[in-house]
Amino acid sequence: MISQKMLALGQSRSCIRELFEYGMKQAAVVGRENVFDFSIGNPSIPSPGAVNEAFVDIVRTEDSLDVHGYTSAAGYPGVRKAVTDDLNARFNARLRPENLFFTCGAAPALIAVVRALAVEGAEIVGVAPFFAEYRPFAESNGVKFVVTPPDTEHFQIRLDGMADLINEHTQAVLINSPNNPSGIVYTKETLKKLAALLTEKSRQVGHPIYIIADEPYRELVYDGAEVSWIPNIYPDTVVCYSYSKSLSLPGERIGYVCVPDSAADSDLLFAAVAGAARVLGHVCPPSLQQRVVARCAAERPDLAAYDKNRRALYDALTSFGYDCPKANGAFYMFVKAPGGSSKAFSDRAKEKNVLVVPGDDFGCPEYFRLCTCVSYDTIQRSLPLFKELIEACR
Amino acid sequence: MISQKMLALGQSRSCIRELFEYGMKQAAVVGRENVFDFSIGNPSIPSPGAVNEAFVDIVRTEDSLDVHGYTSAAGYPGVRKAVTDDLNARFNARLRPENLFFTCGAAPALIAVVRALAVEGAEIVGVAPFFAEYRPFAESNGVKFVVTPPDTEHFQIRLDGMADLINEHTQAVLINSPNNPSGIVYTKETLKKLAALLTEKSRQVGHPIYIIADEPYRELVYDGAEVSWIPNIYPDTVVCYSYSKSLSLPGERIGYVCVPDSAADSDLLFAAVAGAARVLGHVCPPSLQQRVVARCAAERPDLAAYDKNRRALYDALTSFGYDCPKANGAFYMFVKAPGGSSKAFSDRAKEKNVLVVPGDDFGCPEYFRLCTCVSYDTIQRSLPLFKELIEACR
Repeated sequence: MISQKMLALGQSRSCIRELFEYGMKQAAVVGRENVFDFSIGNPSIPSPGAVNEAFVDIVRTEDSLDVHGYTSAAGYPGVRKAVTDDLNARFNARLRPENLFFTCGAAPALIAVVRALAVEGAEIVGVAPFFAEYRPFAESNGVKFVVTPPDTEHFQIRLDGMADLINEHTQAVLINSPNNPSGIVYTKETLKKLAALLTEKSRQVGHPIYIIADEPYRELVYDGAEVSWIPNIYPDTVVCYSYSKSLSLPGERIGYVCVPDSAADSDLLFAAVAGAARVLGHVCPPSLQQRVVARCAAERPDLAAYDKNRRALYDALTSFGYDCPKANGAFYMFVKAPGGSSKAFSDRAKEKNVLVVPGDDFGCPEYFRLCTCVSYDTIQRSLPLFKELIEACR
Repeated sequence: MISQKMLALGQSRSCIRELFEYGMKQAAVVGRENVFDFSIGNPSIPSPGAVNEAFVDIVRTEDSLDVHGYTSAAGYPGVRKAVTDDLNARFNARLRPENLFFTCGAAPALIAVVRALAVEGAEIVGVAPFFAEYRPFAESNGVKFVVTPPDTEHFQIRLDGMADLINEHTQAVLINSPNNPSGIVYTKETLKKLAALLTEKSRQVGHPIYIIADEPYRELVYDGAEVSWIPNIYPDTVVCYSYSKSLSLPGERIGYVCVPDSAADSDLLFAAVAGAARVLGHVCPPSLQQRVVARCAAERPDLAAYDKNRRALYDALTSFGYDCPKANGAFYMFVKAPGGSSKAFSDRAKEKNVLVVPGDDFGCPEYFRLCTCVSYDTIQRSLPLFKELIEACR
C-alpha cells in the first residue's frame, strides 16, 4: 500500500548522489585524500565574506521575531526589491518586485512552474544534455518530458531536432545555460534562433510555448562569455534561479521563480506558481537566508579558483587524448568516454577511486561529467589516473 | 494552458493568509496598535537565547563550505543523532538516526508522507477541527481527504464517526495534537481508543492504516497536559514535526518526518518518503538551521507568555458569555460564534479591526479560531471589542 513510484524514486536516488555517498564511504576506507570525487556540484569556493557577515549581523542586530518569523510565501518585500533592483541594473530587465516568487532553491522553483503548467496531456521539451533531475521533476508532477537530441559538436541546441518534438501539448521548453552537465553557455545566436522557432510554433499551436530558463550558474562564466537575460530575447520566458552556486550556499535553499510581465498571462502564471508551491509544502523560503540575500544581492563570486581548475583539467585531458568541448560556464566539463560507454568508463574510474558521473541520465550516454569545483590538488593528483584510464582503452 | 487547479489554489490562498495580509494593510491605515490580529500562528515569544547564539557561533567558527554545503537529503548525521537522542531520552522511543528524514518544516513533511501513500484511490481520514491546509495538501497530491465530524463537547475524536469512514482505500488517519485550531490535547485515553479502532480496522481491510501525527505544537502544553509519543501507543505511526513553534523559528523551515522501526514496512515507507520529497523539489533542509537544531535539540520554549494570554482571554471571553473549550495546548482558542455562523462573526469583527479566523476551513463552521500568540496588551485592549461583539448578537 506504498506508492511504488515514490518508492522507486527513493530507492534509486540520483546517480550523482549515489556516487557522492559512495565517495564518502570510500574516503573512510582509503583516506579522503585518495578519493578523487568529481561527482557532485558542491561549490568549493567559500561564500563571499559579506555573506557570512550578513548572517551574523542580522541575527545579532535585528529583532529575533522578525528575523525568524513567517514571511509572505513569495518572500519578504525587502528581498524581492533588492534582487529586482540588481537584475534591472544588470540586464535592463524592468522587473517589479511582484515578478519574483522566492523558493527553497531552484529545484522547487522548477517544480512549481512545471505544476503550474501541468494541464491534461502537458509536455515539456528538454535539451540533451540536461540536468538529470528534470525527468523525475516533470514526470512525477504530471508532465511528459521529451528530449531534443544533443548537439555533440558545439553543445548548443539542435533546433531541427526540437522542432519535430513540439506539438499542441507542448507547454514549455526547459533550458539550462550555463549548462549542467556540459559547462557550455548558449550563445545569443542560439537563443535568438530558439526564440524564432518558438514564436513560430506558438503561433502554429495557438498558445504560448514558454521558455523555462533554469539559471543557477548565471554568474559562473569564463573567457568573457555572455549570459543573456532571456526574457529580453523571448518575452514568454520564466526564469528559475538559485543562490547555491553564486553565493556558495547550496545547502541553504534559497532561490526564486521570476515571471516577468512580458510573459503571456503573467499574472495567472504567477498565481498558479504560488498555488503549486503551496501544495508542494512551500510556506516561505528560510527567512534568515532571505535577509542575507537582500543584503548581498550585488555580491558576485570570485571565480579564479574554478577558472584555474577548468584550464588545468581541460589542458591535461585534451593532451592525453580526451575529447571534450571547452567549457565556458558553470563548474563542469563533459568528456567523451574513451571506449564509447560512459557507464563502463565510470565503473573503471571508480576502481581507481576516481568518481565521474556517466552521461546516461543527462541524455548523453557517450559522455561523462566532471565537476571542476574540487581542490586544485585533487585535480593535479588525479591526472596520472586519467592518463592511465585512457591508455587502458587503447 | 495554465493549470486551473493550481491557479485556483494560488488565487484563493488560505483564509488565514488572506486575513493576515488584510491586517498588514489595515495597520498602515489605522495604525498597527489598532489592529487586533488574532489570525496567524506566528510565535510571539522570541527564540531561546541559545538558538541565536548557535546561529552566530556556527557561522563564526565553523568552516563556511561545511556550514552552507549540501547535506544528505535526510539531514546531516549530527542533527539526526542529536534529535533522536533527545526523543529517546524523553519518550523511551528507541529511535535510530536513520528513522528521521529532515524537511523544510512540517508542511513538506506531511506532503511527502501523503505522496508516499498516494496509491490509486487512496484516502486519508482527518478529524474536525483540522488544520485547513490538510485538504489541499491531500487533494492536490492524489489522495481523497475525508473528515470525521467534530466532537464539539470535548474536542477529542468521535471514533463512531471515524469508523464509518474507514474502508479498504484508507491509508492513514491524520491527527494533530495539541490541535490547531482547538488548542486541545488529545488524551492518552483517546489515543488508546483510536489505536484499538485502527488495529481492528487494519485487520479488517487487510493492510496497515497508519496514523500520521502532525506535532508542531508538541512542546506547547499547559495545565500539566501530557503529550503522548504516539508510536508507543500505536506502532504504525509516522510523526511529522516542525521547530516553527518550539524554537520560534517559523520562517526558517526546519522539521522532520519520523518513521519508527515499529511502523509496518518502515524501510519501504521511509524510502517512499525520500522519493516523494525528491519530486517535491526537496534537496536538503537549510543546512545552517540543521546545525542550529543539532545544538539546540534539548531547548524548550518558555511558555509563560502564551499561558498568561491563554488564561486572560479564556477568563474574559467566558465571562462575557462566549462558549469555548479551555485550551491546554498550542496557542489557539476555538470559540463558538455567537449567532451561529463564524463567517458572519468574523466579518463583523473585521469591521472593528479584530481579525479572527472563521472555522469553515477547519471543518467547524460554528466556531472561530483565535491565536493567543499576540501581545498581552493586544488581548487587554481587544476585550471591550469582544464584549461589544457578543452583546450585538443578543
